[in-house]
Order: sequence, then structure tokens, then C-alpha cells
Amino acid sequence: MSKLPKLSALAVDDSGWGYFLCTYKEVRTGRSGSDFLFLSLQDASAQVVAKLMTDAERYKSEFDAGEFVRVEGRGSLYNGQVQLVLSTIRRVNPEQDRQQGFREEECILSAPRPIDEMWSELQAHLGGIKNQHIRILLNRIVTDNEAQLRTWPAAQQIHHAYRGGFLEHISKMAEVGLLIARAYGADEDLVLAGVILHDIGKLQELAYEGGAGSYTRDGNLVGHIALGMMMVREAANGISGFPLELRSQIEHLVASHHGVREYGSPVEPKTIEAFILASVDELDAKLNQVRRAIAEDPSDDEFTAWNKRLGRVLYKGQ
Amino acid sequence: MSKLPKLSALAVDDSGWGYFLCTYKEVRTGRSGSDFLFLSLQDASAQVVAKLMTDAERYKSEFDAGEFVRVEGRGSLYNGQVQLVLSTIRRVNPEQDRQQGFREEECILSAPRPIDEMWSELQAHLGGIKNQHIRILLNRIVTDNEAQLRTWPAAQQIHHAYRGGFLEHISKMAEVGLLIARAYGADEDLVLAGVILHDIGKLQELAYEGGAGSYTRDGNLVGHIALGMMMVREAANGISGFPLELRSQIEHLVASHHGVREYGSPVEPKTIEAFILASVDELDAKLNQVRRAIAEDPSDDEFTAWNKRLGRVLYKGQ
Amino acid sequence: MSKLPKLSALAVDDSGWGYFLCTYKEVRTGRSGSDFLFLSLQDASAQVVAKLMTDAERYKSEFDAGEFVRVEGRGSLYNGQVQLVLSTIRRVNPEQDRQQGFREEECILSAPRPIDEMWSELQAHLGGIKNQHIRILLNRIVTDNEAQLRTWPAAQQIHHAYRGGFLEHISKMAEVGLLIARAYGADEDLVLAGVILHDIGKLQELAYEGGAGSYTRDGNLVGHIALGMMMVREAANGISGFPLELRSQIEHLVASHHGVREYGSPVEPKTIEAFILASVDELDAKLNQVRRAIAEDPSDDEFTAWNKRLGRVLYKGQ
Amino acid sequence: MSKLPKLSALAVDDSGWGYFLCTYKEVRTGRSGSDFLFLSLQDASAQVVAKLMTDAERYKSEFDAGEFVRVEGRGSLYNGQVQLVLSTIRRVNPEQDRQQGFREEECILSAPRPIDEMWSELQAHLGGIKNQHIRILLNRIVTDNEAQLRTWPAAQQIHHAYRGGFLEHISKMAEVGLLIARAYGADEDLVLAGVILHDIGKLQELAYEGGAGSYTRDGNLVGHIALGMMMVREAANGISGFPLELRSQIEHLVASHHGVREYGSPVEPKTIEAFILASVDELDAKLNQVRRAIAEDPSDDEFTAWNKRLGRVLYKGQ
Amino acid sequence: MSKLPKLSALAVDDSGWGYFLCTYKEVRTGRSGSDFLFLSLQDASAQVVAKLMTDAERYKSEFDAGEFVRVEGRGSLYNGQVQLVLSTIRRVNPEQDRQQGFREEECILSAPRPIDEMWSELQAHLGGIKNQHIRILLNRIVTDNEAQLRTWPAAQQIHHAYRGGFLEHISKMAEVGLLIARAYGADEDLVLAGVILHDIGKLQELAYEGGAGSYTRDGNLVGHIALGMMMVREAANGISGFPLELRSQIEHLVASHHGVREYGSPVEPKTIEAFILASVDELDAKLNQVRRAIAEDPSDDEFTAWNKRLGRVLYKGQ
Amino acid sequence: MSKLPKLSALAVDDSGWGYFLCTYKEVRTGRSGSDFLFLSLQDASAQVVAKLMTDAERYKSEFDAGEFVRVEGRGSLYNGQVQLVLSTIRRVNPEQDRQQGFREEECILSAPRPIDEMWSELQAHLGGIKNQHIRILLNRIVTDNEAQLRTWPAAQQIHHAYRGGFLEHISKMAEVGLLIARAYGADEDLVLAGVILHDIGKLQELAYEGGAGSYTRDGNLVGHIALGMMMVREAANGISGFPLELRSQIEHLVASHHGVREYGSPVEPKTIEAFILASVDELDAKLNQVRRAIAEDPSDDEFTAWNKRLGRVLYKGQ
Repeated sequence: MSKLPKLSALAVDDSGWGYFLCTYKEVRTGRSGSDFLFLSLQDASAQVVAKLMTDAERYKSEFDAGEFVRVEGRGSLYNGQVQLVLSTIRRVNPEQDRQQGFREEECILSAPRPIDEMWSELQAHLGGIKNQHIRILLNRIVTDNEAQLRTWPAAQQIHHAYRGGFLEHISKMAEVGLLIARAYGADEDLVLAGVILHDIGKLQELAYEGGAGSYTRDGNLVGHIALGMMMVREAANGISGFPLELRSQIEHLVASHHGVREYGSPVEPKTIEAFILASVDELDAKLNQVRRAIAEDPSDDEFTAWNKRLGRVLYKGQ
Repeated sequence: MSKLPKLSALAVDDSGWGYFLCTYKEVRTGRSGSDFLFLSLQDASAQVVAKLMTDAERYKSEFDAGEFVRVEGRGSLYNGQVQLVLSTIRRVNPEQDRQQGFREEECILSAPRPIDEMWSELQAHLGGIKNQHIRILLNRIVTDNEAQLRTWPAAQQIHHAYRGGFLEHISKMAEVGLLIARAYGADEDLVLAGVILHDIGKLQELAYEGGAGSYTRDGNLVGHIALGMMMVREAANGISGFPLELRSQIEHLVASHHGVREYGSPVEPKTIEAFILASVDELDAKLNQVRRAIAEDPSDDEFTAWNKRLGRVLYKGQ
Repeated sequence: MSKLPKLSALAVDDSGWGYFLCTYKEVRTGRSGSDFLFLSLQDASAQVVAKLMTDAERYKSEFDAGEFVRVEGRGSLYNGQVQLVLSTIRRVNPEQDRQQGFREEECILSAPRPIDEMWSELQAHLGGIKNQHIRILLNRIVTDNEAQLRTWPAAQQIHHAYRGGFLEHISKMAEVGLLIARAYGADEDLVLAGVILHDIGKLQELAYEGGAGSYTRDGNLVGHIALGMMMVREAANGISGFPLELRSQIEHLVASHHGVREYGSPVEPKTIEAFILASVDELDAKLNQVRRAIAEDPSDDEFTAWNKRLGRVLYKGQ
Repeated sequence: MSKLPKLSALAVDDSGWGYFLCTYKEVRTGRSGSDFLFLSLQDASAQVVAKLMTDAERYKSEFDAGEFVRVEGRGSLYNGQVQLVLSTIRRVNPEQDRQQGFREEECILSAPRPIDEMWSELQAHLGGIKNQHIRILLNRIVTDNEAQLRTWPAAQQIHHAYRGGFLEHISKMAEVGLLIARAYGADEDLVLAGVILHDIGKLQELAYEGGAGSYTRDGNLVGHIALGMMMVREAANGISGFPLELRSQIEHLVASHHGVREYGSPVEPKTIEAFILASVDELDAKLNQVRRAIAEDPSDDEFTAWNKRLGRVLYKGQ
Repeated sequence: MSKLPKLSALAVDDSGWGYFLCTYKEVRTGRSGSDFLFLSLQDASAQVVAKLMTDAERYKSEFDAGEFVRVEGRGSLYNGQVQLVLSTIRRVNPEQDRQQGFREEECILSAPRPIDEMWSELQAHLGGIKNQHIRILLNRIVTDNEAQLRTWPAAQQIHHAYRGGFLEHISKMAEVGLLIARAYGADEDLVLAGVILHDIGKLQELAYEGGAGSYTRDGNLVGHIALGMMMVREAANGISGFPLELRSQIEHLVASHHGVREYGSPVEPKTIEAFILASVDELDAKLNQVRRAIAEDPSDDEFTAWNKRLGRVLYKGQ
Repeated sequence: MSKLPKLSALAVDDSGWGYFLCTYKEVRTGRSGSDFLFLSLQDASAQVVAKLMTDAERYKSEFDAGEFVRVEGRGSLYNGQVQLVLSTIRRVNPEQDRQQGFREEECILSAPRPIDEMWSELQAHLGGIKNQHIRILLNRIVTDNEAQLRTWPAAQQIHHAYRGGFLEHISKMAEVGLLIARAYGADEDLVLAGVILHDIGKLQELAYEGGAGSYTRDGNLVGHIALGMMMVREAANGISGFPLELRSQIEHLVASHHGVREYGSPVEPKTIEAFILASVDELDAKLNQVRRAIAEDPSDDEFTAWNKRLGRVLYKGQ
């Protein structure tokens, strides 16, 4: 039995075995009265729905959601989406399976670029800051949260929703934001501060572990924008001599980065830098969605299927 | 020359002298080429537009916006509104004018109820809190901000926009909020905390002095909702053993009290108490507007003139 | 075989027999080509989906939608919701089953409070009315519609959608509405009239029988707001000397109680009492939804699953 | 001194005397401190703003709003609009002025077509009704309200806001509505009933006398849609054997004729006839506004000035 | 075995054989692990979902989407909709099946009126044009696109979505539009030009063949409004002496026919004719949807089931 | 008498003479009955309102709107805005006044950067295009419209509304758009095509001459988006071998550049390049407005006055 291709390349006729992360598991009762397993499996490249129809009774205790698994199965089409129909599934035995090629990081949906590469870029940006107050603030927050910043997704679902997605998002935003700041003579240090801190509250809004995320209590009740503002204030207040005017400007960047109140910003942009930040954030999130939608569309047509979240089809080209 | 009536009772034919607070002053050039003064004057009961058409050159240096003034003039109708047309104006000389009956508090637009009475009610509510964490938190914040809480308006323009308006607003909301909490078996202490703290950030959002208010830098850049959440967090973190879950709930009340994102709440109500708070806040603000609009409407008709902010006429009764 | 628990307590492993009201019945063709039954069953505490997969051909003529039934089955999970998978079903034989404990009122989804208790409260409110015109009007309408007012739901789906829900809704609104009216010095009699009459048109908008409701022709073509206004006018015109001004005010309360035109009010609130009524109605409906959503959420999490109608998750507490 | 042209033809250099209806009168205090009169004058063709700057003291007691007046003055441009600057004004002395050519109907803003002609058309439409219930209903309501139906405007401001405008509106809608009903095989009698009755509540919503209109108490508190529905119900209930189903359909037409809830319809169209009625009503109101805006635009440009209500400029042609 | 009724009359108990067009075909894997076929079949009268559950492996290569097929099956209810459950399916063998009564045009969902009849009406309208420029323009465009204009649908889904639907739509719009133009003294030739050309860009926006439609590249990227404007410009520029002002007016009709920008019109109506065109287009599309929804509703109730697109139920009558 | 400062620096006490362009002229009748002149004057740096109160009769024939004028006057404050109160005004006599320093280009509101400099940048961008079809297309359109592209404004009012504003807008957008395209690996040639062509229809939408702009007939009836698409199509069709797919993509960029239908785009972005173009266009327009609003705000406060178009105040900094 051959190995399954990576999930982003899974086609209808593929069959074989593979290692994946199981992020969702439910025992459902079929119409015939017998149980089946309804699962989500992912590797670094994609996430798919999987079903195990036969012997669910036996397999359902062989693993749990949140565990790495070894499966055998084949690709099958359902409602225009490729799914995996499994014949066997069991949790990974790390010691033994590692010899067969099991690697944890290959089983978690991940940003396409290497994390160390993106991290180096971020460090370079930090090194270029001229305003010492901003430099101290950013270094402190980035250092304190390095582990999370390296591995977390940027969101639960909408965009950059995978390992390293947070870093990918701010890394690209830093590149683009600084270019625009330069072009318009805006304060580059402020724009960079906005880029790095605008979503920092997500580190408290979400809980992310082993490839699976969920909202925390504060995430639901307080929200990442206010959480981020509080993190900024606490950090700024901990830096001796941090100017109040600068603190206001940075909190404003975090507060206004969704651009309009309808999208959850309690105040709307009132500075050149805040307008730039909101624009760069929205464009990066949109382009990530567009790219994903085009990449994941299975057809050979020039256009993708209807994308519900974006409310349109997208052009894939000839 | 007789004394002018209080401004809420000013009619077209009234003339005389009076003490007022001047909250706005502008020298305008009339079409004839000569200057005139365009002013806002207020006493405890109302605010009116005033104009001085003759000898503006001479009077314009006799006072400034933000000062108490002594004027002579008469009521005049303009676009359906009673205005004061002045013949003289000068700044108050406190020592001397006090003998003629000048009292500062009578010249500042004020809540209709005595402040001490509302303050006692608030203290009684605080005394009834059962949850000790909430009691400590509220007492600390209320005590620290007593001077402001006693005298500030609840808003710049829309509702309770006068001296003591903030206290009038939370005092009435406390009364109503607790009744509703009891009726629905909600947590009364939480509702009271929400009532007292929901607009606490306005103490940093606005600057209010001598009857005139303006937005602060943080008011414009950060906004009163996030400012209030930070005040809550700082105070809660300063209380030993303050439960994190309780802190989240109180911050949620502040965050969600505008009810929907479109009105600036970064998160929407997710608890019974947050739904009650948003409802009570909106109703109290609306009824204050409605009452004012009815009270200030000068006509004898059954309905007020078109109220632009509410987008309707209001029924005054037969 | 043991008896099934009440439906609000039904868990995945429960099995047994029980009496229910069947409110929906459909014969569906499964993918295997054989038929199965898709049903809604309710008792006083909750409503669930039920399926009968085996021998549908035989059981489908054993009962009809709208009838009380006796079933055997067990709880099963489907898409995160507990359903009943039935092995047998037949219509209730009242005489015989009553001996086994069948009680009609226990099989119809109902308000949690006893109807007589709520009815007494309503009578007490009516007894306290000072304005004799309003007292006569309300007594006449309440008396004429007693049977319906005691047992109808307040709505088809959204809130208080069960036996006695109408009475529960106006009963709670009367309590809260009068408290608020007192707090703001509004006309208590008018507020009470608004509370009792605001949805009175639903008695003509809906047809409700044996636990199942549907829209009438006039409900669809005329709508409950206009129907209610007509009921008020007809009743008021039948009372000698009923003041026209009072009739206008009460019709205004009914007309404007949805608060804004977007929600179907042909005119928007223009009196203190109308603002209070719209606020109390919205809050009571919302809190009923929130309470239900929290009570019906099956998980152990701090938050409910996503609530589509409210557009958010809700906090259930620790 | 020559006679002024009709107001729709008034140009900047015209001067002379004329008879008009004064619909608004306000004594304003000018910046120089002296009073002037700010007025609205109308004749059958148009309405203009008029001002009397000199000797206001003397002239202000010579007439009141709502009276016919004789004025002397000349056309003057203000903000791109032609106004009348008056030198004299006094109320009409009917006996004496009639000899100089004063005719009441020539001084009230009026529909361009003769009222008797439109009335005949309406009678012809009524004569063609096949359904006897509808015929009796319409004849009764039309006969009972003939005086008002002949002379009232269709609205206070937006469209057909002049003497006979109501009749002009339903007359044209009857013509167009019947054509469309025939084209789509809809029930012509129902469409005609909808046309004649859709705004019938305006006869109670507005008070119109001598060229000036205002909202009644019921107009503000109940609104013309509900008032019209009640008039239909009362009339239908007074006709022996009037079918309930037909009454529902006609009430539905009145209820839904604004097309969507946002515009005040408590229910939205659910029948072919209701869709047609809403479409014909909107088109006729829009075209009346467009025609007026084009006719009243004073410039020689191809396009009108910005029309605030329609939110656009309009093409007048080469 | 008898022949199946036409699809618009298909009931649950009907079984037999028939010829249809298969417009959609998907092989799905059922929960039991075996494949089944999920199809859309249509004849001239209606379109239905069909499934083949048994021997899918064998039948799936017997035909393709876009082909005419011969099936055997029976009507079955699923979610309140009648579907066809098939036992056999194969592609049509034209020569042989024609002898059994197969007619292509009877297997394609079609407008209810004969195409030649509608085409004659259109020609009559063209013959009545007075403005020679418009007459030449319309004749040229109609002639050049006759084949498509005769057979295309007016839209992919929403209204007139069947063979001949485009012609049915403009044919009825021409009738109604000219009546309205006459009633309002609008330019009839311009209205007719707008009617015939408003959707002309759909001939490039859609690809329609053998009963199945799809969006073209230009349809997705450019859209039918701009495509239509370009077709008009190209045609007008090709006519010697075509007045620029007339070209602008006609392009304006095409551009503004959706009435508001939210629905994709880059400019909004600015001429009487454009207002008429937008109104007639919307009404004809709406009535077509209403008629279809009423015709296709399977129940015996007075009202249809909830219509998602129209956001309401519709009255079918007693 | 000294020369007036440039208008962007005009203060209340400045008086003297100067050369300006008069873009608006109206003779108004003052309340005293005498005429005065209401004007708009501009130089390269700003535009102000001007009034001439004395001897209007004499001066009104000394010049017309659209002419260059020589005035004497002084700065005066009105409603918080500095205006010019004139004592004399006459049209410029080019020969004679040129000797006194009159320069046409100094009297027309202009972009801050030299036009030749921006033009060179644009040429450099054109030189860098790799796709020969795009290069030919852009060169042809840019060359054909060089005179207009060098001097026109980008809009009538909202942003870049001055001489050279169009060039300033696309020049800055080209710089930023190419940076973003590179950052996201988008097609740089397509983005540049979108930047240069997105507003090209404005050259037909507006008429701009001597500093004053107005809408053309096609501008009002067809709109700049469709006009631009037609210009692209005509140019592309005139280039032999221009690929249809490329033409579609470029037309899509023009069509979708407003981002959403509500803002007049008949189709919404469906390619990476279209998303980038819409984002860059919006940001550049917004930042231009923000910069202008900050630069033109006359106060010493940290924030600007309320900006109606942006719906907020803006932070000017300490």
C-alpha cells in the first residue's frame, strides 16, 4: 500500500496510508441505524473531511480529537469536495511511527513559508526602528510572546488560519506597511508598531494548541481589540518615560485597525498611520483568502466555485 | 431694568439683565461689513444663542468664552427659536457681582435634581452590594472620582449634556437596572457594576470645566469604552484576590454596553446582565432626549417640531 | 423498559418509552431507497427531532402530525443535537393510556410557570388601573379572549414559542413595564394597556391548536400589528364615551411597539410610554431567547454553540 | 404698475402686483436689529419664498398665514432661487378684490389638469368594476369623501403636494394600474381598489384647508396606512355579505403598498396585485417628482441642479 | 409501463418512463460506501432533482450531463419537494427514440408561450418606431442576434431562467413599457430601445447551449451591463449620423436599468424613460418569480412555503 | 499697498492686492435690499470664499466667473473660516498685469509637486512594462491624452480636486501599486494598467478648463467607469493581436476599482490585481483628503474640526 499524497494534492482516485492530525471527531448515527465516524484531518498543506463508515464501533476508541493518527483510506467526491473515506484509523505511536516517517510538524496545517525565515525578517524590522520608545516596547512584547508569535494562526477561520499564520500575516504586513509609510511620508516606526501590535490581543483571545484553536473566555467577553490595547498599555506603563502621546497613538492604531465600527473598532482611524494600517490589514487578509480559495478550488474551470465568504467567484486564469 | 427670567422660560418680549456662562464666542463680519458677536449663553435651566449687533468692536474685549458674564438684552425670535439680542455684555466681577446675586452654580446648565440627593442614592446602592469584590471595586472607583462623578455631564451633546448629568444618568439607571435585574433573576451586583462603570471612561474621554466640555486626546484616539475597560482592569488588578472571571464579566459589561458594534461596542452582549445594561442605558438616554425635546419645544401644538436627532416629531399631549 | 426522561433532560444513552405530541411528520425516502419517518416530538419541557428508520411502511399509518403518540426509542447524537431514534410509534388511545399516566398538558411544550399563577398576576394588574376607560377596555378584551390568552404562545418560533408563552410574555412585561413607568413618571395605565394589547393581534394572526401553530390568512396578509390596532379600535368604539385622544395613544402603542419601521412598525414611538413599551418588549423577547439558548445548549463549555438567530455565542458561566 | 406673471414664470427682473395665498409667515430679527417678514406665497402654478425688508413693523399686522394677500414686489435671486422681495402686502378684501380679478382657486397651488376632468375619469373607472362587492365598497368610500378626494394633495411635501394632487395621483395610477393588470392577467378590480384606497388614510392623516396642510394627531400617532386599513374594514363590515377573503386582500393592498417595511408597510406584497400596486405607486410618485424638479429648475443647463431628495441631478435634454 | 407526466405535474405516486434533458450529474458516495447518482432533469415544463441509488456503477457511464436521456423511475417526496427516484437511465439515441416520441424541444425547460408568437410581437414593436436612428439601431442588433434572442433565458436562476425566457421578458416589457410611456408622455421609442437593449449584454455574459447556461469570462469580469453598453456603442458608432445625444440616452438606459448602484448600475436613472425602464424591468422579473413560485408550490395551502429569494410566503388564493 | 500672501497662508488681519482665478460669481440681494457679490477665488495653494459688499453694482460687470482677476481686500473670519472681503475687483489685463507679476499657473489651484516631475515618473513606469500588449495600450492612451493627463484634477470635489491632481493621483498610485504587486507576486504590468486606466473615463466625464470643472452629458448619463471601459476596449481593439483575455482583465480592473457595487462598480474585484487596485485607489484618495483636512484646519488644537465627508475629527499632533 502506497503513501497518500499531501492533502492539498489529494484526488478522487488516490488511496493509501498517511499520518495526520485529527482536529474533530464525532460519532454519528447513520440512517441505517449504525454508527459512523465524522472527522477532520489535516497535514501541513490542507484540511479535509474524513469518514469511516465500517466498524466505527471498533475504531472509535482507537484515537481522540486532538491526536495524531495513522489512517488508511481513499479519496472520494462529496458535494464537489474531495473527502477521505477511511478503512482504518489509530492514534500515532510516536516512537514507532517516527521510524516510518511520522513528523509532527508535517501533520499540522501550516504557513507555506518557513517560520525561521519569517522570524528573521521580523527581527530585521525591529532592528530598524529609530524611535527608542517604540523599539523598547516592541522588543519587550515580541520577546515575551515569542513562542506564540512563532506558531499561532492569525485567526480561527477566515484568513491565515494555520500554524505560523500570525507570523506570516504580520511579516507580510510589515513589508508592505513600511513601503507605503515611506511612499506617503508617514511615521514608519508607528506603522510598524501598529502592524506588530494590531492583533496582539489574539494571543489572549484564542487558545491554540497542537493545531486546534478555540476562543478563550476573555476572547469572547472582551475581544482581541480591547485585550490588545490593554497589553499595550500595561507594557508602555512598564517602560520608564514612555510618552503619553505616543501611547495614545499606538493604542489608537490597535483600536482602529478594523477601519469601521461595524467591524468592531470602537474608534475609527484619525491619523495617517491608522488609515495605512487598516488598509494593509484588510488587503493582506483579503489576498490570503483569495489565494487560498483559488488554490483549493478543485475544478479545471477559469473561475472558482462561488465563495460564500467573499460573496463572489474568483478568476483563476486560463 | 428688571432681571431676565431663567432661560428655559425666556419669551420673545422679555428684556432685562442677567448673569450667564458664555460657552461660545465668535466675532463675525456681517454683510454690511461691520462685526457682530455670536455667542452661546447658559444658566442652570437652558442654553440659548445670543447676538450683539451694535458696538461689537467695543464689547468683544470685555469677556471671553468660558467666563461668566453680565448682559443686558431682550428675547427675539429667529427660525422659530428664541434668542437673546444683547445691548451690553461684560465679564462678571465676582466680588462685586456676588452682592447683586451672582451665583456660579446658577449660571451653569445643570441636572434638574439636587446633586447631593442623587449622590446619596448612589451611596445607598453601593451599600447594598453583596459581592465583596464588586463592592470594593465600585467603592474605590467611585471614591477616587467623586468630584467628577458629582458634576460632569453624561455626554457632550446628545443626552444629559449638563452639570450633574453623569450622576443623574447612572443614578436613574441604577434604580431601573436593579428593578429589572430583580425581575429577571439576574445578578444585581453585576448590573449595578455595569451601570456605574459603563461610562466611567468618559472621565478620561472628556475634559469638562466650568460648564464647558471638550474631547481629550485619549477621548478621540482611544474612546471612552476602551478607556473605561482599562480603568476597570487597573482597579481590579489592584485588588488582591479579585477573581479573573468576575473581571472578565465586568469588562464585558463596559465593552458591550452600546449593544451593537455599529454604535462602537467592540463586542456584543453575551450575558443576561449585559443585555439588561445595554437596554437600560439606551432607554434612559432616549427618554432624556425625549423629555428635553418636549420641554424645550416653544410651540403650543400637540407635537414638537421635527427632531433631527430622533428623526421624528414627539407627542406633547393635549 | 423504563420511561424516557423529560425531553429537556434527554441524553445520548437514554432509552425507554414515553408520551409526546407529534407536531411534524414526513415520510422521506432514504438513500438506500427505503422510506423512513422524520418527526418532531415535544413534551412540556422541550421539543426534539425524532426518526424512525425501520419498518416505516408499517408505522407511518399508525399516527398523524398533531396527534399525541406513544413511542419507544433511544437518544442519539446528530450534528451535536440529541435526537430520538424510534423503534415503535403509535397514536395515543386516551382512555387506555391515561391509565398508564398519559396527561395531555404534559405533552405540550409549555411555559415554565403555572398558567393560573400568571393569570392571577395579570388580574391584579388589571385591578390596579386608575383610568376607568382603560380599565374597561382592557377588561373587555382580556375577558373576551381569556381562553386564548391563557394558552397561546407569544410567537411561532423566535421567543416564548410554547403553550402559555403569550401570557408569560405579557405577564413579565407588565411587571417590568410598570416598574419602569413608575421610575420615569410615565402613565402607568397606558404602559399596562400597551403591554397587554401590543401583541393582541396575534390571536388573529396565528392559529394555535393542540401545541401546533400556523399563520392565518389575515396573519399573512394583514399582520398582527394592524390586526391588533383594529381590535383596539373596535373595542374602544364599543365603549361609550371612550376619549378619542386616548384611543389614538393606545393605537400608537400597538403600532409602534416594534420600535422601528424595519421591524414592521408603521409608525415609530412618539411618546414616553411608547418608548418604554418597545424597550420592554424587546428586552423580554431577547432574554427569553438567551435563557432558552443557554438552557438548551448540551455542552459543558463556558459558552453555548453559535446561536444563529442572535448572531453570537452566549456565556453560560463557569 | 403691471401684474406679476404666474409664479412658475417669475423671473429676476419682473416687478408688479399680484394675489397669492400666504402659507407661512414669520417675523425675523435681522442682523441690523430691525425686523423683517419671511413668507411663503403661492398661486396655482408654484410656490416661492418672499421677504419684506422695509416697514415690517407696519405690514406685519396687515395679514396672517393662511390668508389670501395682495402684494407688490419684484423678483430677486437668492442662492440660485428666484424669490419675491415685497414692498407692500395686505390681506385680500374678497368683495373688492374680486372686481380686480382675484380668484381663490388661482391662488392655491394646484394640479395642472382640471379637477372635473380627472373626477370623470375616476367615475368611469368605478363604472367598469365587475366585482359587485368591490364596486359597492369603492363607490361608498369615494362618495363619502368626495369633497376631500377632489381637492386634497397626495402628500405634504414629496410628491403631488398641491390642490387636487391626491386625485391626480390616483387618477393616473388607475390608468396605468389597469393597463398593467390587463397585461399580466391580474385582477383588475382588485388593482383599482388598491389604487383608490391605498392612500385613503391620508384623509385622516392630514388636515388640509385653504392650500395649507398639516398632520393630525392620528396622522402622527397612527399613520395613514393603518388609518386607511381601518377605513376599509369599517366600510367593508358595513356592507352585508362582503366576503372576508376579499376584505383581507384589499386590506393587504393598503398595508403593503409602500413595498417594504423600511418605508412603513407593516407587511410586504404577497399577491400579484400588491406587487403591481406598489410598483405603480412608486413610479407615479417618482415621475411626479422628476417632472417637477425639471420644470422648476431655473438654469439653461442640460441638467438640473443637485436634487437632494432624489440624490442626483436630472437630465432636462438639449 | 406508462409514460411519466410532464414534470410540472409529477406527483408522488407517479411512475413510468420519459425523455428529459440531464443538466447536472454527480457521482456521490453514500454513507454505506456505495456510489449513487445525483442529477437534475428537465422537460419543457419544469426541472426536478433525480437520484439513482442502485447500480450506479453501471449506469454512470450511460450518459453525461448536457445530454438527453431516457429514464424509468417514480416520484418521491424529499424535504417537501417531489423528486424522481430512477431505476434506469441512458442517453437518447435520436434516430430510434424519435420514433418513440422523443422531441428535443419538449425536453428543454421553456417559456410557456410559443417563441414565434413572441417574436412576431417584437417585430411589430420594431415596426412602430418613429425615430429612424433608433429603428436602424434596434433592427441591426436584433437581426444580428436573432438566434440567441429567440432561445436564450433571461437569467441563470432568478427569473425567466428557461429557453425563450429572454424573449418572453423583453416581449412583455415592451408591451407594458409602451403603455406606461404613453400614459406619461415619455418618449416611446427610447423606452422600447431600453427594453430591447437593457439586457443585451447577457448574450455575452452567458453561454447557453442545449438548455444549460453558464457565465462567460467576460460575464464574470465585465458584467452584462457594461457589455451591453459596449454593444450599443459599437452598433451606434457603426450607423452613419447617429446622434451623440441619442447614444448617450440609450447607454444611460442600459447603465441605469437596475435602478440603484447596490444592484450593479454604475449610474442611477436621470431621465423619465430610465425611471420607467427600471420600474418595468423590476416588476416583470418580480412577477415572473411570484408566478413561478405559486405554480411550483406543491401544497394545498392558501400560501406557498417560505420563498427564500423573495423573503416571504405568497398568497395562492382560496 | 502690499501683496496678499498665498491663499493657503491667508490670515485674518492680512490685507493687500493679488491675482486670482474667479471660479464662481453670484450677485445676491442682501437683507438691506442692496446687492453684493458672492465669489470663489483661488490661487495655486488654496481656494477661498470672497465677498464684495460695497459698490457691487459697479464692480459686477468688471469680470466674470472663469476669468483671472485682480482684487484688493482683507482677510476676515466667518463661521470659523477665513474669507476675503474685497474693496475692488477687475479682470486681469494679461499684457499689462504680466508686468506686475501675473502668472496664470500661479492662479489655479494645483498639485503641490511639479507636473514635469510627476510626468517623468509616469514615463519611467511605462518604460518598465514587460508585457508588450499592455505597453502599447498604455503608451497609446497616455500619448493620446497627454494634455489632459498633465493638467486635470482627479475629481470635482472629494480628492485631488485641483490642477495636476489626476497625474498626482495616478503617479502616487503607480509607485505604491507596484510595490504591493511585487510584495504579493501579482502581475505588475496589470496593476500599472489598472492604475493608469482606472479613472481614464474621467477625461470624458468631466470638462475642465482654466481651473474650473463640470460634468459632461456623458459624465452624468454614462459615468466614468463605463466611459473608461469603452476607451479601453476601443484602444485594445485597435491594437492588432491584442489578446481577448488580457482585454477582459484590464476592463475588469476599470470596472471593479471602486471595490463594491454601492460605490458604483458594476462588478466587484475577482483577481488579485483588482483587489490591489481598489485598495490602493481608496487609500490614496483617503490620505489626500486627510492631508488636506489637516493642512487646511485653521485652529491650534491637536485635532481638526469635524470633517463632514470623513465623518470624524483628525489628529494633527501636538
